[in-house]
Amino acid sequence: MGNIQVGILMGSDSDLPVMQRAASVLREFGIEYFMTVASAHRTPDRVIELAKRAENEGWKILIAGAGMAAHLAGFIAAHTVLPVIGVPMDSSPLGGLDALLSTVQMPGGVPVATMGLGSAGAKNAGLFAVEILALQDPELKQKLKDYREEQRKLIEEKAAALSQQ
Amino acid sequence: MGNIQVGILMGSDSDLPVMQRAASVLREFGIEYFMTVASAHRTPDRVIELAKRAENEGWKILIAGAGMAAHLAGFIAAHTVLPVIGVPMDSSPLGGLDALLSTVQMPGGVPVATMGLGSAGAKNAGLFAVEILALQDPELKQKLKDYREEQRKLIEEKAAALSQQ
Amino acid sequence: MGNIQVGILMGSDSDLPVMQRAASVLREFGIEYFMTVASAHRTPDRVIELAKRAENEGWKILIAGAGMAAHLAGFIAAHTVLPVIGVPMDSSPLGGLDALLSTVQMPGGVPVATMGLGSAGAKNAGLFAVEILALQDPELKQKLKDYREEQRKLIEEKAAALSQQ
Amino acid sequence: MGNIQVGILMGSDSDLPVMQRAASVLREFGIEYFMTVASAHRTPDRVIELAKRAENEGWKILIAGAGMAAHLAGFIAAHTVLPVIGVPMDSSPLGGLDALLSTVQMPGGVPVATMGLGSAGAKNAGLFAVEILALQDPELKQKLKDYREEQRKLIEEKAAALSQQ
Amino acid sequence: MGNIQVGILMGSDSDLPVMQRAASVLREFGIEYFMTVASAHRTPDRVIELAKRAENEGWKILIAGAGMAAHLAGFIAAHTVLPVIGVPMDSSPLGGLDALLSTVQMPGGVPVATMGLGSAGAKNAGLFAVEILALQDPELKQKLKDYREEQRKLIEEKAAALSQQ
Amino acid sequence: MGNIQVGILMGSDSDLPVMQRAASVLREFGIEYFMTVASAHRTPDRVIELAKRAENEGWKILIAGAGMAAHLAGFIAAHTVLPVIGVPMDSSPLGGLDALLSTVQMPGGVPVATMGLGSAGAKNAGLFAVEILALQDPELKQKLKDYREEQRKLIEEKAAALSQQ
Amino acid sequence: MGNIQVGILMGSDSDLPVMQRAASVLREFGIEYFMTVASAHRTPDRVIELAKRAENEGWKILIAGAGMAAHLAGFIAAHTVLPVIGVPMDSSPLGGLDALLSTVQMPGGVPVATMGLGSAGAKNAGLFAVEILALQDPELKQKLKDYREEQRKLIEEKAAALSQQ
Amino acid sequence: MGNIQVGILMGSDSDLPVMQRAASVLREFGIEYFMTVASAHRTPDRVIELAKRAENEGWKILIAGAGMAAHLAGFIAAHTVLPVIGVPMDSSPLGGLDALLSTVQMPGGVPVATMGLGSAGAKNAGLFAVEILALQDPELKQKLKDYREEQRKLIEEKAAALSQQ
Repeated sequence: MGNIQVGILMGSDSDLPVMQRAASVLREFGIEYFMTVASAHRTPDRVIELAKRAENEGWKILIAGAGMAAHLAGFIAAHTVLPVIGVPMDSSPLGGLDALLSTVQMPGGVPVATMGLGSAGAKNAGLFAVEILALQDPELKQKLKDYREEQRKLIEEKAAALSQQ
Repeated sequence: MGNIQVGILMGSDSDLPVMQRAASVLREFGIEYFMTVASAHRTPDRVIELAKRAENEGWKILIAGAGMAAHLAGFIAAHTVLPVIGVPMDSSPLGGLDALLSTVQMPGGVPVATMGLGSAGAKNAGLFAVEILALQDPELKQKLKDYREEQRKLIEEKAAALSQQ
Repeated sequence: MGNIQVGILMGSDSDLPVMQRAASVLREFGIEYFMTVASAHRTPDRVIELAKRAENEGWKILIAGAGMAAHLAGFIAAHTVLPVIGVPMDSSPLGGLDALLSTVQMPGGVPVATMGLGSAGAKNAGLFAVEILALQDPELKQKLKDYREEQRKLIEEKAAALSQQ
Repeated sequence: MGNIQVGILMGSDSDLPVMQRAASVLREFGIEYFMTVASAHRTPDRVIELAKRAENEGWKILIAGAGMAAHLAGFIAAHTVLPVIGVPMDSSPLGGLDALLSTVQMPGGVPVATMGLGSAGAKNAGLFAVEILALQDPELKQKLKDYREEQRKLIEEKAAALSQQ
Repeated sequence: MGNIQVGILMGSDSDLPVMQRAASVLREFGIEYFMTVASAHRTPDRVIELAKRAENEGWKILIAGAGMAAHLAGFIAAHTVLPVIGVPMDSSPLGGLDALLSTVQMPGGVPVATMGLGSAGAKNAGLFAVEILALQDPELKQKLKDYREEQRKLIEEKAAALSQQ
Repeated sequence: MGNIQVGILMGSDSDLPVMQRAASVLREFGIEYFMTVASAHRTPDRVIELAKRAENEGWKILIAGAGMAAHLAGFIAAHTVLPVIGVPMDSSPLGGLDALLSTVQMPGGVPVATMGLGSAGAKNAGLFAVEILALQDPELKQKLKDYREEQRKLIEEKAAALSQQ
Repeated sequence: MGNIQVGILMGSDSDLPVMQRAASVLREFGIEYFMTVASAHRTPDRVIELAKRAENEGWKILIAGAGMAAHLAGFIAAHTVLPVIGVPMDSSPLGGLDALLSTVQMPGGVPVATMGLGSAGAKNAGLFAVEILALQDPELKQKLKDYREEQRKLIEEKAAALSQQ
Repeated sequence: MGNIQVGILMGSDSDLPVMQRAASVLREFGIEYFMTVASAHRTPDRVIELAKRAENEGWKILIAGAGMAAHLAGFIAAHTVLPVIGVPMDSSPLGGLDALLSTVQMPGGVPVATMGLGSAGAKNAGLFAVEILALQDPELKQKLKDYREEQRKLIEEKAAALSQQ
């Protein structure tokens, strides 16, 4: 078994179907991760402990998904200098605008790398974590290029199918 | 000298001119307060300490003003069961919509009493604190009624002045 | 039977399923409340009478939920110096942005403590009322801390369940 | 001197420069009006009295201008069956979106005829009042047609000036 | 049979279920109306003819409902000095924000009295038309007051039912 | 002298500084144009006449700039099958969101080719008109390619200047 | 078989049901088109090749539909001086506001002719392409006028049906 | 001289004052960078060449700042598997909402790590790049912790200064 490279946090277990998109990308690239629920507002100590655990166990990257006044990514970013990737949930009556602005509009000094809303954002959070890890891992980098190539082919197949209709 | 009843926190000293509106209301009603700078992201421990100090010293209410991804009010609310009043700053390129949504859209379980944007909101934060304190202080309640009455008279004087133009 | 501590108003009976979230929190904490329908626009006199009744019967706090051009909280706040908590409904085609801005953007002088949109906001309105009442009631304060602790445990159980998947 | 046909209310005397656009249209058409300051939140009784006075003195139309959580038009509409015209101020950090939604999104049963933001809206409030009064006054109707004709000529003169550059 | 007092226009027959709310209010108050489909963009001449017909047949008021880039109300207002009431449809992916802004933000000189989005707005358009007509018809004015009174009673009945639960 | 190829309309002469950006692009490419003021609401007949004149005189393209409830482009599009390019002004308190939505959200059947807000949009309106005209004019097409090439060089010069700092 | 006049691109095959609205308009007017899938982000080379193919094969117009951060239209516009028409998809949690702004707010120098959101926009993209092509084809122009006339009749029939209810 | 680690791109030289915030952070941490102007729409080939150069010269991270329909970050992300950080400019009439959504709402498969609007975002882009580089550089990691500590002290000094007023 490899070591944990990425921690995936979510503010509520209702975010699980979305955040599993990040996890499945990591699995696809063979990256070990730890995924859990931790709320910035309801379990702040737990979030701080996870930040410490990340440091102690040598995790590299944290992914945090939350909705509404989505403070989780910013909150953990305040407790670590590891790269933090934020995923705003689109579950609110405002279509996720609240979560997006709460995640991305961080004050100068404490960055959060914000992805798009919901599932596409969660998938990209996984990919972005892989891009960071690939900086030191040529094999992983090649896998990323292959992944892009497969994406390309998939679209060309769809295009070919369309042109035959 | 009386005891501190209200803590006023702001995320940055650039918020001071706005948050002084809350302080001046408290002074006007004779309420002791402590006002300081504390950032949810840049000094999270300081915020947690202030939450503990509030508890230990018997403060009653916390007012927190912040801009952009305004997490300060929600962050301190996560560390106390004292009433927390949030004031979103209107200083961002988005006119404060980011701060408003980041302050008000709290998840169920950890309330923040959100006021309007900027100066009007800061003034109302002070008044709302007084309304809470007046629940146990008939004299303060009378002052609030007098304050409303003065507001009323002021508008009637302006109306009278207008009708004479 | 205890005395009424909190009045819960809603602009329309269609708001009942949401506002019952506030009521059920109060029941959970053993707080007496009175819940009714009263429209700022269709029954303004009724709202004013409720403000007077609150005063006469010694109610402590008013919670007002309304949608669209949500004036109810501001309207009753204009007639009382009791703390007023506003809950914007998310029922409009604009996702509740209209109700949120109509509730929170009060002019300086008449505060409304605004909660988040819809059910989460209604639940938090109940909790915020309890936080105010707990200022004079150490037993209630302890219950709030226990409630937070239960919230914390619930999330940790969910986290444990997730880690066993 | 003629009788008052139109009441112009504004929530704050800072709205005067905008609301004078409504007044100057009425003067231009020879309509008597009464203009005053009255706040839905700070002087609710005064607003109710003005609604009664409008009824007793035979005013025909009420124009109400307010900003932020702009409740004035809706509040007076709740106390009269006279046509109420609302003018949202554009003075807030949100560019007046708050005032616009607070004015226009009235619940079914109590209409407010909402104009555009700020000065253009105030001018149109005056014109719309004249359009209503002109329904019973052929001379006034002719003046309105002449006014439109002058508008038309003014634009054609500008167009002519532009084509000679 | 009485004379037509109000013309109800809609930009598309898909707006009919909403605009019938305006029609049913007029029927309830015994006001004759003519309801039809006319598109500012697809049948501009038809709209201009309806403006002329309104003038020739002595209609008093025009109600226009449209969605998206909702030009219908402004377009007919450009061709008449009769009061024009606009109803923005909430049918677009933007929740009707496009229709609302397209209807209400008229330039100074050509007013459109804008109601709220969708059904509530259509109902209020009917009521506002009745308020205008009631200025010259004491019986109609009394009906409006009775209508308000019924509204009031209905809410009180709902409140009574709620208190017995 | 060549024939008029493009008509540039604007809703108000205050839009002139912005719309001159379109005109100056056309001059740069040697395209004859006619620029004038015409308001959809204040001079509707003038707009219709311009649509007819465009047809009769063989104009190819119409550019229409307007602000707020910007109906001008859609209104002229309703009266012609020539390509109509819309330029929303950013002059309103809402930053031009009103003009953008009023211009772009046309119903199916009557297209308006909408450009970005303000000056960039006006410049692009001119360029898009040239792109259409270049479909039948290889020389013009070459000029467009040269223009793009100059744009490219300008940016590379700026990049070179930056790298020498 | 005629030559291809219009290329229709879409960022994802999930956009097909919407973009077929553009295709069916072109078929209705007898215009040859080529429709395919090509993603600005996942197959950028393919988009550039399509821009070259358009040039080489003498296509006249490109229509590009995309959602979210909709870069497709702008991206292909950067590689051609042919007229590019953009169709923002309304499929995102933000109702398509992201796609609309990403498509329309192009910098000065590279125009994209933006249509409305979703199906109405796709239909209008097809019609606008026909309007451009009709500039050199009187028969096509007549068909466009007939199409408008049919639109007009359809609405009048609906109006007639409505008046008989 | 060390090797270039970070490439900073901006869509226009008018973005320089903002993007220099990113550069000055990198200088402060002793990171070599290359900063230049490159427009996704006006110099697409240049952007693609920079992506290749980044690969060939072993750059680690790309930072891209752009405004309006801000495609630069997404466009370069389409041509590299290096981590790309996007900075939306707040220079548009819409306060940067267009640039924010155009940068962050990337489709699944091509991530862009989006920072907040304008200067705070640019500063955080620099810091986030350092956080990534620090994953392999314990000295840099310590510098980041020191930087956070200095931030903390600065705020405490401001707090101390405030408490002495």
